Amino acid sequence: MTVAYKQQSADRLQESLGLVQSLIERQRQLEHLVSRQDAAESPAVDPLAPQHNLTELRQKLAQLHPADIAHILEALPLEDRLLAWDMADAARDGPILLEVSDAVRESLIEVMDQEQLVAAVGDLDADELAELAPDLPRQVVYEVMGRLDEEERGQLQAVLSYGDDRVGALMDFELVTIRADVSCEVVLRYLRRFDELPGQTDKIFVTDEAGHLKGVLSIRKLLVSDPDAGVARVMATEVVSFHPDEAALDAALAFERYDLVSAPVVDERGVLLGRLTVDAMVDVIREESDSEVLNLAGLKEEEDLFAPVMDSVRNRWSWLAINLCTAFFASRVIGAFEHSIAQLVALAALMPIVAGIGGNSGNQTITMIVRALAMGQMRIGQTGRLWRKELGVSIINGMVWGSVIGAVAWLLYGSVSLGLVMLAAMTLNLMLAATMGVMIPTLMQKLGKDPALGSSVLITACTDSGGFLIFLGLATLFLL
Amino acid sequence: MTVAYKQQSADRLQESLGLVQSLIERQRQLEHLVSRQDAAESPAVDPLAPQHNLTELRQKLAQLHPADIAHILEALPLEDRLLAWDMADAARDGPILLEVSDAVRESLIEVMDQEQLVAAVGDLDADELAELAPDLPRQVVYEVMGRLDEEERGQLQAVLSYGDDRVGALMDFELVTIRADVSCEVVLRYLRRFDELPGQTDKIFVTDEAGHLKGVLSIRKLLVSDPDAGVARVMATEVVSFHPDEAALDAALAFERYDLVSAPVVDERGVLLGRLTVDAMVDVIREESDSEVLNLAGLKEEEDLFAPVMDSVRNRWSWLAINLCTAFFASRVIGAFEHSIAQLVALAALMPIVAGIGGNSGNQTITMIVRALAMGQMRIGQTGRLWRKELGVSIINGMVWGSVIGAVAWLLYGSVSLGLVMLAAMTLNLMLAATMGVMIPTLMQKLGKDPALGSSVLITACTDSGGFLIFLGLATLFLL
Repeated sequence: MTVAYKQQSADRLQESLGLVQSLIERQRQLEHLVSRQDAAESPAVDPLAPQHNLTELRQKLAQLHPADIAHILEALPLEDRLLAWDMADAARDGPILLEVSDAVRESLIEVMDQEQLVAAVGDLDADELAELAPDLPRQVVYEVMGRLDEEERGQLQAVLSYGDDRVGALMDFELVTIRADVSCEVVLRYLRRFDELPGQTDKIFVTDEAGHLKGVLSIRKLLVSDPDAGVARVMATEVVSFHPDEAALDAALAFERYDLVSAPVVDERGVLLGRLTVDAMVDVIREESDSEVLNLAGLKEEEDLFAPVMDSVRNRWSWLAINLCTAFFASRVIGAFEHSIAQLVALAALMPIVAGIGGNSGNQTITMIVRALAMGQMRIGQTGRLWRKELGVSIINGMVWGSVIGAVAWLLYGSVSLGLVMLAAMTLNLMLAATMGVMIPTLMQKLGKDPALGSSVLITACTDSGGFLIFLGLATLFLL
Repeated sequence: MTVAYKQQSADRLQESLGLVQSLIERQRQLEHLVSRQDAAESPAVDPLAPQHNLTELRQKLAQLHPADIAHILEALPLEDRLLAWDMADAARDGPILLEVSDAVRESLIEVMDQEQLVAAVGDLDADELAELAPDLPRQVVYEVMGRLDEEERGQLQAVLSYGDDRVGALMDFELVTIRADVSCEVVLRYLRRFDELPGQTDKIFVTDEAGHLKGVLSIRKLLVSDPDAGVARVMATEVVSFHPDEAALDAALAFERYDLVSAPVVDERGVLLGRLTVDAMVDVIREESDSEVLNLAGLKEEEDLFAPVMDSVRNRWSWLAINLCTAFFASRVIGAFEHSIAQLVALAALMPIVAGIGGNSGNQTITMIVRALAMGQMRIGQTGRLWRKELGVSIINGMVWGSVIGAVAWLLYGSVSLGLVMLAAMTLNLMLAATMGVMIPTLMQKLGKDPALGSSVLITACTDSGGFLIFLGLATLFLL
């Protein structure tokens, strides 16, 4: 069931956030004042002031859309967040939990007891329940399941049976189906019997007795059609439909390509199982980009901005550890040339330049390839062609920037040959960066892994160790 | 005008791409064979074979949705792309140009003459024309403008007058308006007079004689309402509307929060100007995330995968140059300590570890802060609080990983004090990374700049130079 809540623009939302924050701040001050004057004789502050202030906070929250409350909760530090959560209408706990980020959801669920949780999520639809289920205590899920009727329980189990990156996990079961042999007039009369059409209903699904999808009737078409026209004549049959096992991202890209609002999900026999809606697909696109950014930065998952320090440490731990290993390896490469550095200490100052530029250039290449792979625009057969192109780019960059920095090294240390080694090392390391930048993500893809994962750390490891090896190696060969 | 094209799932799209590629490959082979046997007496290959093959290619492309053709064009190397572009139905040039990425659009427009371009874009709507206008030769824009009627010309000029990150630049003028004093029955009859309702029509806009927006009538509501009910009673009045000067990203986030399909754009007097639709908002969200990823990687803009080498060089040039400057600065920091390194060459091997871990950790912090700022979830007043938290995380990480690597240094070089310097330098550099990771994006934001832009390069510059300075400085003080 959807209720129409007040919607507000970004400015107004920021105002609301500010107001909630100041009410919470005032609450803390008032409570502090009242508790201090309990002992005093003549209270300067009305002992009921904190109560009134809380009521004001409760009223403010009651006016807000659940998505806006979710946004505000995410922006509040933990203790303030829990106070606001307490003041929000319990009847809206479910919708709010659906909207908040995973990290914040955890912090809210943690402070709720089983009874509150069951009450909060009991009214949600199967697909919504399925979204929350992984974060809920198992007991709560069982209890809620027990209260569902057989059809809903079946739907919930179906949704839960798919991995959360599959279409099946995002299926929505609230949809309108009709038969092909009726007229548009009949459809309009049938629709009028609903109290409300499901959200994002831009099309009605046409099925036969066995539930096979025969076509879709777009509402836009229905509204302009002759009432006497048969559905079979007005409906479209060439529409994209999805299988529950398909990747959710592929479905989201199809929504983007064809500007879809909703689309049917069918099983392998063509039986209509449910539908996908654009709001869920927007979330998929957002999550895909988010995880790309987070993976590049070496964060395991989206973080609660105000997470306890230890939670943040855990989220960042693994990538730092990997980075430490690769940095240690690079350090051992340098260690192998300590003798050379002792003879020509300028090498120590120049080597990070070679490694750094290689890392930057490699990250440029790998970012491009990762996106092309994710969008399905690059086929493995094209690897060779792209590699040659990237190699061309790296040779030009290496010659140009290598010459600049080589000239600077020559001026600084008065050695032409040191400048030439610098130029050669820069060019070779950029070529290594281009090669690894193409190879790492395509290999990852071939191995069935997410090509974004760890790409940045791996390429930096290659260009660091490789850069030190190339530069110090060349220097040892030609300068000493 | 929209035509219903065949939609296909991701797998089928990949198949289509493969088929187009093999037809193009065959074309090259056939042309080669025919040209070689022209001199020969008995042709082994039918001289008409290339013609037939091209026809097949043309037919295949004719079956595809413009968005799918765009996808295929993006995945083809330049010469193949131009052949496919030539074989695509000229009547669909406009819709295809709208769908391809900026880089690929440029490559296609480059090979079209003025007449072809005018024909291609002449049938587009004002908002679509406005999207293409910056890429078109000025002459083409003038000629197309001259052919528009007064209303359309006004719309196009309005859209062009807004920056492309503003709501006004994304306005769509195809919408249905009604008056509040009619009944639902009348609305239904009025709609039936349309040949087709505009795409993404989930609501009808209710205006008065002067064009002021009075409310919106959701189609979902209209369909279930009593035909005799008045629009004024059924319409919703508390809906979010946008101003043309508002940031497009803010509007897109509102679409995400409220699961909107379309929303009105009004001027400051409340007059309905146009509407926003979810497909345009999905693009905004996608572009925002894309530019975040690209900025982090140091790429100026999205690149055509098969761009000529020099185009790619230009796209990556500026960031590499900045990186070179910061790397050079870091190198000079090391240069200042050459005397220390000459005395204790182990320093050269260990210093990149301190700098590298600092960079990784700083990038983790900055990515979090940049996202929180972009989502409007962080207020400048909270900077101090977040800084203390990040500092806490960095101290823990510094103590733990610093101890590990300090112990390794001790074992490797047999010097306890070297290990202790390593531990202290790691911790201090991580604290520096946390401080700059919070400071850089908040400062950028205060200066009115995009906080993502250059964040990664700037933080790495700080942690490199800072890391070298701290480690070598401490070593010089305590070890030599």
